[in-house]
Amino acid sequence: MVVAKLVYEFSEGDRDQKDLLGGKGANLAEMTRLGLPVPPGFTITTEACRFFLERGHQPDQLRVQVTAALRHLEDRVGRRLGDSVDPLLVSVRSGAKYSMPGMMETVLNVGLNDRSVVGLVEESGDERFAWDSYRRLIQMFGKTVLGVEGEAFGAALDAAKERKGVRTDVELDAGDLKTLVEEFKSIVADHTGREFPQDPREQLDLATLSVFESWNTDRARLYRRRERIPHDLGTAVNVCTMVFGNLGSTSGTGVCFTRDPATGQPGVYGDYLVNAQGEDVVSGIRNTLSLDDFAEVDPASYRELRQIMRRLETHYRDLCDIEFTVERGKLWMLQTRVGKRTAAAAFRIATQLVDEQLITLDEALERVAGAQLAQLMFPQFDIGAERTLLTRGMAASPGAAVGKVVFDSATAVAWATRGEPVVLVRKETNPEDLEGMIAATGILTSRGGKTSHAAVVARGMGKTAVCGAESLEVDSVDRAARAGDVTVHEGDLLSIDGTTGEVFLGELPVVPSPVVLYLEEGLEKAVASLQEGGNEGTADVVRAVDRLLTHADRVRRLRVRANADNAADADRARRMGAEGIGLCRTEHMFLGERRTLIERVILADSSQERDTALQALVPAQTEDFVDLLTSMDGLPTTIRLLDPPLHEFLPDRSELMVKVAVAEERGQVDRDDVRLLAAVERLHESNPMLGLRGVRLGLTVPGLFALQVRAIAQAAARRVKAGGDPRPEIMVPLVGSVMELHLIRDEADAILAEVSAAEGVDLHIPLGTMIELPRAALTAFRIAEAAEFFSFGTNDLTQTTWGFSRDDVEAAFFAAYLDKGVFTVSPFESLDVDGVGRLLDIATREGRRTRPDLKTGVCGEHGGDPESIHFFHTTGLDYVSCSPFRVPIARLEAGRAVLGHPDTHTHTDDDIEKG
Amino acid sequence: MVVAKLVYEFSEGDRDQKDLLGGKGANLAEMTRLGLPVPPGFTITTEACRFFLERGHQPDQLRVQVTAALRHLEDRVGRRLGDSVDPLLVSVRSGAKYSMPGMMETVLNVGLNDRSVVGLVEESGDERFAWDSYRRLIQMFGKTVLGVEGEAFGAALDAAKERKGVRTDVELDAGDLKTLVEEFKSIVADHTGREFPQDPREQLDLATLSVFESWNTDRARLYRRRERIPHDLGTAVNVCTMVFGNLGSTSGTGVCFTRDPATGQPGVYGDYLVNAQGEDVVSGIRNTLSLDDFAEVDPASYRELRQIMRRLETHYRDLCDIEFTVERGKLWMLQTRVGKRTAAAAFRIATQLVDEQLITLDEALERVAGAQLAQLMFPQFDIGAERTLLTRGMAASPGAAVGKVVFDSATAVAWATRGEPVVLVRKETNPEDLEGMIAATGILTSRGGKTSHAAVVARGMGKTAVCGAESLEVDSVDRAARAGDVTVHEGDLLSIDGTTGEVFLGELPVVPSPVVLYLEEGLEKAVASLQEGGNEGTADVVRAVDRLLTHADRVRRLRVRANADNAADADRARRMGAEGIGLCRTEHMFLGERRTLIERVILADSSQERDTALQALVPAQTEDFVDLLTSMDGLPTTIRLLDPPLHEFLPDRSELMVKVAVAEERGQVDRDDVRLLAAVERLHESNPMLGLRGVRLGLTVPGLFALQVRAIAQAAARRVKAGGDPRPEIMVPLVGSVMELHLIRDEADAILAEVSAAEGVDLHIPLGTMIELPRAALTAFRIAEAAEFFSFGTNDLTQTTWGFSRDDVEAAFFAAYLDKGVFTVSPFESLDVDGVGRLLDIATREGRRTRPDLKTGVCGEHGGDPESIHFFHTTGLDYVSCSPFRVPIARLEAGRAVLGHPDTHTHTDDDIEKG
Repeated sequence: MVVAKLVYEFSEGDRDQKDLLGGKGANLAEMTRLGLPVPPGFTITTEACRFFLERGHQPDQLRVQVTAALRHLEDRVGRRLGDSVDPLLVSVRSGAKYSMPGMMETVLNVGLNDRSVVGLVEESGDERFAWDSYRRLIQMFGKTVLGVEGEAFGAALDAAKERKGVRTDVELDAGDLKTLVEEFKSIVADHTGREFPQDPREQLDLATLSVFESWNTDRARLYRRRERIPHDLGTAVNVCTMVFGNLGSTSGTGVCFTRDPATGQPGVYGDYLVNAQGEDVVSGIRNTLSLDDFAEVDPASYRELRQIMRRLETHYRDLCDIEFTVERGKLWMLQTRVGKRTAAAAFRIATQLVDEQLITLDEALERVAGAQLAQLMFPQFDIGAERTLLTRGMAASPGAAVGKVVFDSATAVAWATRGEPVVLVRKETNPEDLEGMIAATGILTSRGGKTSHAAVVARGMGKTAVCGAESLEVDSVDRAARAGDVTVHEGDLLSIDGTTGEVFLGELPVVPSPVVLYLEEGLEKAVASLQEGGNEGTADVVRAVDRLLTHADRVRRLRVRANADNAADADRARRMGAEGIGLCRTEHMFLGERRTLIERVILADSSQERDTALQALVPAQTEDFVDLLTSMDGLPTTIRLLDPPLHEFLPDRSELMVKVAVAEERGQVDRDDVRLLAAVERLHESNPMLGLRGVRLGLTVPGLFALQVRAIAQAAARRVKAGGDPRPEIMVPLVGSVMELHLIRDEADAILAEVSAAEGVDLHIPLGTMIELPRAALTAFRIAEAAEFFSFGTNDLTQTTWGFSRDDVEAAFFAAYLDKGVFTVSPFESLDVDGVGRLLDIATREGRRTRPDLKTGVCGEHGGDPESIHFFHTTGLDYVSCSPFRVPIARLEAGRAVLGHPDTHTHTDDDIEKG
Repeated sequence: MVVAKLVYEFSEGDRDQKDLLGGKGANLAEMTRLGLPVPPGFTITTEACRFFLERGHQPDQLRVQVTAALRHLEDRVGRRLGDSVDPLLVSVRSGAKYSMPGMMETVLNVGLNDRSVVGLVEESGDERFAWDSYRRLIQMFGKTVLGVEGEAFGAALDAAKERKGVRTDVELDAGDLKTLVEEFKSIVADHTGREFPQDPREQLDLATLSVFESWNTDRARLYRRRERIPHDLGTAVNVCTMVFGNLGSTSGTGVCFTRDPATGQPGVYGDYLVNAQGEDVVSGIRNTLSLDDFAEVDPASYRELRQIMRRLETHYRDLCDIEFTVERGKLWMLQTRVGKRTAAAAFRIATQLVDEQLITLDEALERVAGAQLAQLMFPQFDIGAERTLLTRGMAASPGAAVGKVVFDSATAVAWATRGEPVVLVRKETNPEDLEGMIAATGILTSRGGKTSHAAVVARGMGKTAVCGAESLEVDSVDRAARAGDVTVHEGDLLSIDGTTGEVFLGELPVVPSPVVLYLEEGLEKAVASLQEGGNEGTADVVRAVDRLLTHADRVRRLRVRANADNAADADRARRMGAEGIGLCRTEHMFLGERRTLIERVILADSSQERDTALQALVPAQTEDFVDLLTSMDGLPTTIRLLDPPLHEFLPDRSELMVKVAVAEERGQVDRDDVRLLAAVERLHESNPMLGLRGVRLGLTVPGLFALQVRAIAQAAARRVKAGGDPRPEIMVPLVGSVMELHLIRDEADAILAEVSAAEGVDLHIPLGTMIELPRAALTAFRIAEAAEFFSFGTNDLTQTTWGFSRDDVEAAFFAAYLDKGVFTVSPFESLDVDGVGRLLDIATREGRRTRPDLKTGVCGEHGGDPESIHFFHTTGLDYVSCSPFRVPIARLEAGRAVLGHPDTHTHTDDDIEKG
């Protein structure tokens, strides 16, 4: 039998072993390897944890390997765990691959017992400290390992203080604490039916298992679901020699960052607390010292720390987040990791590190994410404005929203209808709140996280939302919400920041994003305007964004186009860096004033009448396309022929039925309405998404597609004659069979030839198809015979592959599905690689087998989703197309995708089917 | 360059070369090979035709090869084509792989010209015959090859008769015909600007090309579309020495069958016409002689013919259809082929041939088709009843329907509503006729064929239809239809036979099918009852069906189950031979009286209220399942958990809106309606098919699936205790992801364990899933982890793969799609192998990779479709499930599938992806 290595001493591992040792363990090992002053210890692997979670008991070998590691540790430090003389004490901490702050267990001071506490008194020379440490162990161990309710200990502590007549713990002396230890031991015995374990090794083993178990607590599972961390990773356990920052004025503890993680400002940054332990810094009870103050208090330790910080940043080549403790003048490093940072800081720090020649531009690009760029592109609350924080929740859907508070959907609709922006505040939302959510400018809930109904629906709508603001008490009966002392009433103004999760009282001024300013106006203008306003830091962010976007453009293989339906959108898209239009939806051109024209086509009683109505539309369509092609001069412009079912251009059936019925009741029947209703009934479909639309319309309504093709051809001819470089592409929607496309192509070719001849301009306009039906993907090798390009409509393809319509199901059950783990993310947000992705892969490979120069792209919403873009890159698509606003994000991620997947052409014709 | 062989002499080919030589050519070659008296000749291949059709000119080699074949022919018969002495004349006939009667061209007497006609006069000794033959050539050649309108020749002929004062052609003498030849030649010159070609070889070549061209005439294309013959086959051209049946009383021509193709009665059958050519037999101008009469007229030829018939039947081992000519006492065989026959004859002849030891039972099974069995299973008009044929059209959708004639949809609905069966008669139908079609018992149109709107929709509804009865003039304004002299008015009774395409005046009595009688009552009873009624022939049909069905059961690998929702259907299915239930739809159990119970579940205001309502349903559901499991004792019974969206159990939204609005208008609002409307609005979906249904309901409505699982478990336990052998299987609908199934399985397992314990019965109930979403098929290797069986819901899978809903699109554009060739058959009738079939194949292979003993079946409507069954067999499914009525058809076809595909396990894990 091969025995797995389940225990690694800190000196044995390194930072690349996060899978096995967890993040904390890997970094402790790395610092040890660097020779930094890390208290000795060892890490029990995630593999041991997974074994325990699967089988319900620890692996046999674990006990043996822990004994070996512990003996070695004891020999190195020259002390024995829980000895009565100068005892070795250890901390037992969880440490998973991904940080899950506050989710799992920690037990400090393991090794203390009735005998070793005496040894600690002697060794530390501080009786109060030793008994307090013992008291803390029993309390923490009782709660965490033995499952005693924390309140029992709390009550005893309060009683002790009351007996003594003091208010704080620190006023209890050694004697008081000694008594308290006895009381705590009784509590353990009473609650668990067994004595607090005096055997130090038993303490260690039980603490280890309890860390393992803490992986599967409800809140840990919930956290992982929210953060999309897999449930099967398990946690490592770090056993580390205890060092104490609370041994008097020459001791202390602190956290520091090698750069400012909030703004990205260069220069170190941190807090130090004299005579304290780590928990005290985080809890924020006492005021902390800055690093400059620390330099004065303990110059030697400060100098050593600064050297280590520099060393770590050079070694990790990134912003480091460090925890340290000084025990009687001796500096110890307790933890380090690459530090989290804001989006703005991410861009600034990445480019700073390039300038300091610590990383390459490629690496800098890998350090920033599309999601961060997206955050920087949302409108923000004016940073200069006064603000009063009401509460804080999860940043569920980004943006800055201001509105009057309402507590129910009906009020939201009513107020919004009369033009008042509202913020809908609910404990949680459900499908019945949908209309209110649509009406609101922002959504705030006190329960649920990033996968709650409110969050899922808000993101789907692109609406600002803060969810799970747990300190908020929502009382929808009294129409009030309380956070601490503050009560907000219906009609009060709130400002919610969906990017940070912050909720402010009153109306904060919203300013456009400086990054958007830069994209719209160019770098120089934006920087000048920011510097004028004194925002040098923000100017620096904009410069960093520009550098990294420019670099992404240089390295990426995927082209980025935009979805734009008119010249204004196209202009905007071009400014955002779009290299063409991937989807122009022509149906929007028939709304407004032109609706009557298309209505006439639909209601025509004869083919002659219909032809006349269609003819009337040609000049207007031609103008549309001339404008578009002018905006996009020199760039490919993909125009989709009419897609929606015709009844979408007519009034709603139910409303019309009611109108006619009520009119009949009144004896005031309008003949036009009756005629209209007949047409609406004729075109009525039970499932319009699966009905007569797209190419099916083109093949059953004579002249409809011809009108559009003619307008495109005439517009192109007109642009050519005007000296332009129009590059229209005709896209046929909803094709399921190659024959459909052949038929449309025959019709289109004839018209193009006719217009070419008439205008005296040689037009070659590529014709391609959407791939938005599973059958299209499955028969792509046939469809490619008639298509010069494929554009994956991943939105519709997701709907047909899964058999659900976004409109119907997102609000109805996506929250439940996310909660139950059926989805880890909505397949409308991020492409479902296993199902929809497989179809894309099949279609791309097999389509290219038929037509090697087939151009392939995506024009569904996934075209702007960072995760999906990496998949599209790997699959070998030629371009993505997304809303103009997401173009910069797609550019950035397309660049990052190259770095993540240097060898992109892994698919060959000989690939066997996966699965 | 390899030169293809483009010309085959009759002596070079054989009957297996139908692809290359066409049906007629291959059989002429076969008869030649057998040494039968076939006039010598040669066949120009389909390959030459395809070359011509693709490139627009004949292959260079064709000319050369024709020369060689022609010389060889001339040498054999010792005559030269178009010689002035004893000229060789040839016929030039089309002959495609599949017979297309009357669709393509024929030119007789090729080789006649101004000189050779003189030779023919001398050789035949019949001046009138020779000049008539020349006259016919010019007329036929002029029309067919040179495109002169036939009327020009007809007018000249009429003028000649008028000049002479006679009524018929035969009264014209040689002199008249000689004049007519000159006139015909002038007509050709006038209409074409060139002389009638005198060069015999030029005649032959032009006739050949014109046969090629006739492949692509509109009516040929239309015919092929209707008959589902591919457009790219092309036709062969047969060049055959002319023999003449019109050379006096010792000449004649006939057709015969080696058995009766109408009834399958043993014994030969045929017609003979003295002194006539083939066309005269077909046109039925003169009365023909029976074969017995022929024996008296020309005993020697008769004896030779009978020997040849016996020889051919022995050789072809099947009913042969033969054309022959006697030229001055010498018998010539002009054509033979395996004869078409009625469904009843097919079964009888196949078993007769087995009894005569000409074929094996396996072969007999290959000779009959499920579609024929289906025809025999429809109710039929009483064969004994008097009948008056009004007209004949295409058998578009089988069955026998009687009703009053109506000419518009509204009348159909009105009359049907008051209980009167109607036959809707239209020129053609369109989507606006849909309601009338639903209301009618039968549909009759005068235009369009098997792929017309009327035919497609009628088949989709399972409604009797005759389409394209072209002799019928439909006048919907006057509300009358005329066929010849007869006029039918609105309200008159018509009987239409969708199995034969016949339309009868008045009301014919409808009798149940004798085959159904046999299936329901058993062979002995059915035969006895038929014999009692004097229907010995029909009894023989029933015996034949029984033998072949029994044989099919013996050889087939696919199991056949039925879709049945209640015990009555299950009983019927069992009688039809079903080996289990593949789909029991539980939603039907909540209709009628129980609708209020499920309504209470839906409208529940609290989870407690909902639980109570669900509990109330358990006993009723348990009873349902006890009944079903009793019927199906010992056989697998797959029960599908609730599938439809809940709003299907509530009133229609639009109607309710109108009701509430009108009530408001009247000031009489019903609070219950308002509450109901609120619920309906809450559950409203724009695309219910893509909404909250199936497993999604199970995961969002707590307790709903649990109720059904509990009822199934309790019913099974009760049956076990009663000594039964219940074999329920639980099927989860609409699964798209394995996680959904895991969650339902966890819930179900708990309930099964609970009921097992409570009832003291050890229940193992398999749990599986529908595969009806593309994603389910694409991730089948995952889904199989949690599924013991897959049942392909090919109806829904077709809808999602193609992205259309049958309800919405079948009437809207399927006819157009069939007409334009996008479909060759509706994908709801016969499985779309390229798209949906590929998903089935992926799912079956990859599912079995995960779970080798995975059971797989089909429960969509395709389970009863003959063509699809062969695909399911090849794909390696375990069973099909179809409506009880189609079970015998599926049994038959499953047997035939084995014979057609002896090596069924061609797919292995190493198969690479197709495409």
